Amino acid sequence: MSGSVSPLAPKTFAEMPPVRGVRMATAEAGIKYKNRTDVLMMVFDAPASVAGVFTRSLCPSAAVDFCRQNLSGGVARAVVVNSGNANAFTGAKGRAATELTGQSAAEAVGCSTGEVFLASTGVIGEPLDATKFAGVLGDMKDRGTEDFWFEAAKAIMTTDTYPKVATRSATIGGVTVTINGIAKGAGMIAPDMATMLSFVVTDADIGPQALQALLSEGVGPSFNSVTVDSDTSTSDTLMLFATGAAAADGQARIEDASDAALGDFREALNAVLFDLALQVVRDGEGARKMVAITVEGAESDAAAKRIGLSIANSPLVKTAVAGEDANWGRVVMAVGKAGEKADRDLLAIWFGDIRVAVNGERDPAYSEAAASAVMKEQDIAIKVEIGLGAGTATVYTCDLTKEYIEINGDYRS
Amino acid sequence: MSGSVSPLAPKTFAEMPPVRGVRMATAEAGIKYKNRTDVLMMVFDAPASVAGVFTRSLCPSAAVDFCRQNLSGGVARAVVVNSGNANAFTGAKGRAATELTGQSAAEAVGCSTGEVFLASTGVIGEPLDATKFAGVLGDMKDRGTEDFWFEAAKAIMTTDTYPKVATRSATIGGVTVTINGIAKGAGMIAPDMATMLSFVVTDADIGPQALQALLSEGVGPSFNSVTVDSDTSTSDTLMLFATGAAAADGQARIEDASDAALGDFREALNAVLFDLALQVVRDGEGARKMVAITVEGAESDAAAKRIGLSIANSPLVKTAVAGEDANWGRVVMAVGKAGEKADRDLLAIWFGDIRVAVNGERDPAYSEAAASAVMKEQDIAIKVEIGLGAGTATVYTCDLTKEYIEINGDYRS
Repeated sequence: MSGSVSPLAPKTFAEMPPVRGVRMATAEAGIKYKNRTDVLMMVFDAPASVAGVFTRSLCPSAAVDFCRQNLSGGVARAVVVNSGNANAFTGAKGRAATELTGQSAAEAVGCSTGEVFLASTGVIGEPLDATKFAGVLGDMKDRGTEDFWFEAAKAIMTTDTYPKVATRSATIGGVTVTINGIAKGAGMIAPDMATMLSFVVTDADIGPQALQALLSEGVGPSFNSVTVDSDTSTSDTLMLFATGAAAADGQARIEDASDAALGDFREALNAVLFDLALQVVRDGEGARKMVAITVEGAESDAAAKRIGLSIANSPLVKTAVAGEDANWGRVVMAVGKAGEKADRDLLAIWFGDIRVAVNGERDPAYSEAAASAVMKEQDIAIKVEIGLGAGTATVYTCDLTKEYIEINGDYRS
Repeated sequence: MSGSVSPLAPKTFAEMPPVRGVRMATAEAGIKYKNRTDVLMMVFDAPASVAGVFTRSLCPSAAVDFCRQNLSGGVARAVVVNSGNANAFTGAKGRAATELTGQSAAEAVGCSTGEVFLASTGVIGEPLDATKFAGVLGDMKDRGTEDFWFEAAKAIMTTDTYPKVATRSATIGGVTVTINGIAKGAGMIAPDMATMLSFVVTDADIGPQALQALLSEGVGPSFNSVTVDSDTSTSDTLMLFATGAAAADGQARIEDASDAALGDFREALNAVLFDLALQVVRDGEGARKMVAITVEGAESDAAAKRIGLSIANSPLVKTAVAGEDANWGRVVMAVGKAGEKADRDLLAIWFGDIRVAVNGERDPAYSEAAASAVMKEQDIAIKVEIGLGAGTATVYTCDLTKEYIEINGDYRS
């Protein structure tokens, strides 16, 4: 773990209000780290609706397999998350560990294992000793409190340098509901999904199918538009729970994502997802600069996103940003290798407000001093105009520094 | 440029014999570097057959455009290469620069511009002042000598820490011919093509179509199987010339690549290409370790190569190698993100001779000490058995170190 907090960290953390219907507790189970919490348990007072999106890795973790299987039930009573060990590539032992954890949680809460959801993050390939936290779940269930979001975010950190929390409120049919989210992630971050764990809970009363539709839609411009290092995790998990507690205030249950009453909620949910996703990039391992890359004029939005990610994942673009070098030639290189239609002689490129290239060559009015000034900022915007169509996308990444090498050169020991 | 020679550099350089029919000279044109040669001119005594493969970037350099256009003629009389400026993304100025250089070379040699081939390497986006070397070509033509391969390799270096040369001989119908090659490349190296310039010349008498077929076939397991940083250049150029001087010894001209007389030549050519490609990886920017990644048991050879490149391009795998960490969990991650069919529970992984994982989990007999010893070597072999089919591939890369960041953090200044 890096010793110091990312310079891109939020200056203040959001005040996290309780979300009615969910209680949390953390514990020190000694999975890997000493003297810090490494297990989080969330318990829903009543069965909550659940939605989820997971890694597209073809070698997913045992916990991802477990969640995918349970998701069809649409109902959650408990979530158990551990840091320090990903329980990925652990074969039959991994499945046994998820089964044991699921049973222990079900016993503690008094539900079926099909209503339990699990996530693990940390080293890949090490067997997870699930007995370590299986023994503490009953106690955690009893200790659970509503006002625990910040502590929950801390318990799921690995190489993160700060906990990631976000909150918004919205109204549904005149009833105010809350949406709280936590996330972890700093390395092995690439769509799809952005590698990380994130758990979002609302007290709104929304059915699982509508919830899944909202989540699947919201993940595109948020977690699926951020990349730290182009490496896709085995464990990516984003889950959204709706406790339904707002029904007590008269919120009518919603089963259809296209329901007009969801307008404000959708906007607030997307804001929470975007907020958390950006926090993950801002904690990118070794990051010193945040880069927003906007591609306009591509053949389609999908083409724009692919070009944007080609730029965002280019080690040469990322090291140039680290070196505060307005090296737009490398942006041209990354556009060229993206595989999407591009015409060199139509390209224009901006760093911040400074147009550095136009019509396929250096902008005659371009000032190196002005571009260099942009590169000294902490947040840098790069814009590329392709000049072929109306497709646009914005993706987010960070620079590539020596600290990334240091953090990842010996993570296991 | 890095100050010190890569620790992976060859201990000795090949003795480069002359190749009958080609003469070379270099000059200091002051394109970017001071006090070093930065222009190479090759002149063929008689029209040579020519073949070429180029970057797949959709934003290629002006020189690549120029070569592609001339390649259809199949005949070469002169090659002009400069380092220090890529003449890429230079719009109309770039085309004017290639035209001027082509005309100057044609005048110096007494041929048409269609028989001239050009390559430029260096910074992208800066206009190239072609008048600088246009003025020296006539003199260079007069100074050209046959015994100049090592100097030629030096003149085309950019961030390379050593010149790259390779030579082999072969017999065609009992006549001995020579194949010499030079290459440059250290960063912005990824298939397809491995970013670099390479020029290979033989005195064999082979027609352009046969030559192109030999080259296109030979590039697959060599230059298209190496990656330093996944970034594809705008300028990748690999050209093969056949002067035909061996006709004087009675070698019958060959027009068809499937001619059985080419067996020995094909093998020698592939050896030269492979030798040069490996030298490029061994000079990867900041490289301290060379990694050969073999994938077996994939659904097809193409699938195996895609999985291999996913591993080879993973920053987390490359930083683990830099840290001498046998982190096979990251290899699993990279297999999972490759997008090719894989079954986690069938995977097996080796570092050197040490099987670290089998049947989707850590090998019960695995010794961390033995795996760590492998990681301390300079050349590291990683093997992945997918367990699904008969597809195999081997790709080559280097580790990702802080020096890569340093070299690329401020390349332009």
